[in-house]
Amino acid sequence: MVFATKFPGRSLVALAAWAAAVAAPGMAAAQTPTYPDAAASDPVAMGWMQGVPPPPERTIRFEDLSFMQFPQTRWSFSHWRELMPTAEVARGDGAVGALPVRLREDLDTVSFIPLGGGAPMSWRQSLDANYTDGVLVMHRGVVVYERYFGALTPAGQHLAHSVTKSFVGTAAAMLIAEGRLDPEAPVVRYIPELADSGFADATVRQVLDMTTGLAYSEVYTDPASDAFDFIRAAGLMPRPPGYDGPRTTFDYLRTVKKAGRHGQAFAYKSVNTEVVGWLAARVSGQPLAQVLSERFWKPMGMERDAYLHVDSSGAGYAAGGLSLQLRDLGRFCEMMRNGGAFNGRQIVPAGVVADIAAGGDRRAFASAGYSTLPGWSYRNQWWVSHDDHGTFMARGVYGQACYVDPKAEMVIVRFASSPQASNSLLDPLSLPAYRAVAERLMAD
Amino acid sequence: MVFATKFPGRSLVALAAWAAAVAAPGMAAAQTPTYPDAAASDPVAMGWMQGVPPPPERTIRFEDLSFMQFPQTRWSFSHWRELMPTAEVARGDGAVGALPVRLREDLDTVSFIPLGGGAPMSWRQSLDANYTDGVLVMHRGVVVYERYFGALTPAGQHLAHSVTKSFVGTAAAMLIAEGRLDPEAPVVRYIPELADSGFADATVRQVLDMTTGLAYSEVYTDPASDAFDFIRAAGLMPRPPGYDGPRTTFDYLRTVKKAGRHGQAFAYKSVNTEVVGWLAARVSGQPLAQVLSERFWKPMGMERDAYLHVDSSGAGYAAGGLSLQLRDLGRFCEMMRNGGAFNGRQIVPAGVVADIAAGGDRRAFASAGYSTLPGWSYRNQWWVSHDDHGTFMARGVYGQACYVDPKAEMVIVRFASSPQASNSLLDPLSLPAYRAVAERLMAD
Repeated sequence: MVFATKFPGRSLVALAAWAAAVAAPGMAAAQTPTYPDAAASDPVAMGWMQGVPPPPERTIRFEDLSFMQFPQTRWSFSHWRELMPTAEVARGDGAVGALPVRLREDLDTVSFIPLGGGAPMSWRQSLDANYTDGVLVMHRGVVVYERYFGALTPAGQHLAHSVTKSFVGTAAAMLIAEGRLDPEAPVVRYIPELADSGFADATVRQVLDMTTGLAYSEVYTDPASDAFDFIRAAGLMPRPPGYDGPRTTFDYLRTVKKAGRHGQAFAYKSVNTEVVGWLAARVSGQPLAQVLSERFWKPMGMERDAYLHVDSSGAGYAAGGLSLQLRDLGRFCEMMRNGGAFNGRQIVPAGVVADIAAGGDRRAFASAGYSTLPGWSYRNQWWVSHDDHGTFMARGVYGQACYVDPKAEMVIVRFASSPQASNSLLDPLSLPAYRAVAERLMAD
Repeated sequence: MVFATKFPGRSLVALAAWAAAVAAPGMAAAQTPTYPDAAASDPVAMGWMQGVPPPPERTIRFEDLSFMQFPQTRWSFSHWRELMPTAEVARGDGAVGALPVRLREDLDTVSFIPLGGGAPMSWRQSLDANYTDGVLVMHRGVVVYERYFGALTPAGQHLAHSVTKSFVGTAAAMLIAEGRLDPEAPVVRYIPELADSGFADATVRQVLDMTTGLAYSEVYTDPASDAFDFIRAAGLMPRPPGYDGPRTTFDYLRTVKKAGRHGQAFAYKSVNTEVVGWLAARVSGQPLAQVLSERFWKPMGMERDAYLHVDSSGAGYAAGGLSLQLRDLGRFCEMMRNGGAFNGRQIVPAGVVADIAAGGDRRAFASAGYSTLPGWSYRNQWWVSHDDHGTFMARGVYGQACYVDPKAEMVIVRFASSPQASNSLLDPLSLPAYRAVAERLMAD
């Protein structure tokens, strides 16, 4: 509560909004205020950050937390590097991996019934309803749908939020496949600095699949939640005067304590991904941004450099710091659909992709109680549906998605800036829409 | 002095080092401590920011000002975006403007006598003596020499410091040539926000040529110097607890008062360039990063995106915030040598280049007393030698240079991270070296 006095008024509102930024799906559903719709919150029409300087009431800043308030997020998610330090994820100078395009207008009219029922909605309507900033559909390796809204341009980079986790988890799984990382080893074999933390007896597999038992709360409606300590340490939020807490992500991880037992239940806690990122970076001997560059950006022929938020010691924010071009997210997800191959190269071993697609422990997942994800599981930082199409996803708050439907030979990638963080609130207009598009494509 | 108590010990040392970062040449010569040489301060060999995380004694941070201390600067000048917010200067997706290469090994042995006398030194020796991070020589449009040292790679971007000013000044001069900016108009015609400042009766020409009379001190050995207020406002330095000064560059500019008369004497004060940047952005209707992209990066076929430090309102740091690839600096300077044409296009009107090359008011310049630049002048944010080769330069502290020698049909561009900020201290081993290379090339 001391915290509240330090961030009074508007800032506290922003704090609650921030909350959502790294919130576990399903956690921010407490209240559902009314927000302006996609057209009314269009960041270009609203004039955010336009003019030199922009007028005060249209200025978005890091230091006052306005960058995490809706509708400012409709601008800031596409301009993250202008708000904080970032490291380049270099594509190198290789040729761009081709993305053939044969657009289909008919997809706009694809119709679906929202999860939980309701009136039918068209695919095109769903894009506005979800505050979509950009969406791309690929079928059999061809782009069949591509649209941009608001502040996102085809060449622009958008914050992927927790979709970042799936890049990091895939890189770690590759290190396992190469024998450089033992999934059954305790993480302290690679990171002795965690010996006095709750991660001391956690295995690599447990942090990868988020089955650790940690005394770490991600309750963003509570300013005393551990999540805010993490966010302040990572440099994702201004620190109050006199702050003497940890100043880096890694220093924060050392303070996390254990609660319960590891390996029992799935519990979505971003600190696990920070350990995965640390493992990948340490075993690779490279900063995380370079790991992502060497593993994906360079060999895949990505179109644009990406970038990764870094903390005050230069560590990349593994849980949600990647900003990348929409088409490049399409390339990544198409590669996963394609058994790990893209641009004429095997990027990820087929076995790694198959292991992810096969999913994790469904029983361990069920206890987390995600209402929109019945029967799903979590593996290597991916969400796996176990549906009849073998669908699996990378998911990030505010509507970020990479949806891989192997049976339909389709991937959908989407960037969004919904006022609602929780994907549990966004899934009702997203998951059935993705499925309906898949079925339309399969019908041809 | 209040300031000193807020930044005690090591930070104060860093403050003095920082000092130099935007210091007027010639101002930081008060004391000359002994520094480790180029080999001993090699940032890769020293292990700065290596390891995940790097060891505390090899970590470079914004918040403790270590990023501005030597030898840490040998790393940080090549990693600026990892320390603070930046905006992309986009190259777009056009073809890269070719840079033909025919390297000449013989240039290493070119010999010269330092300014002020002394033993002859070779070109190759001068590179280490000046803590060169990268250097490229072009003759008649062909790269004849190219080397990288320390933390800079061929694909990397290096902070250009005040070389940034020449990009901004050239863009403004182009707006003048297009009739969109009147050089004789008061700046307040375009920026009424400055009506109560010392810029109120300054003309566009006066800020472009730095002949304003301003109560603005750039004395970096004095923590009470105005320069630190500017730096804090611009977000280039952590702010002390309880800071209630201006929070943006533009807000700071409004506080600058007049001293003496405008148009009388040259006085190198970075705040002039911030006004030039503001003018260019406002008249263009674009943020400064976009101005640089549209004016130079896209039409020139630059090889790499560049980036520009932005303050907390998104304004680009015109006086010294540009980080770019060395080869792209080579392209820019070759374009200036070539009468404004590059990559098959007229980038800058020939008249604008001719006006810059013809120089400014030598008498106004002389009063500033630059010992290494006798007879020079300053025009549109460029330094003009008036020598028999018609040489003109863009110059930045710590050894950044773009040296255009029209008669020798040569340009030299250099990035460096000297422990000495002042170019007056670096010129003795630089200017005669550049001239000697020019003469070798002319002899063929």
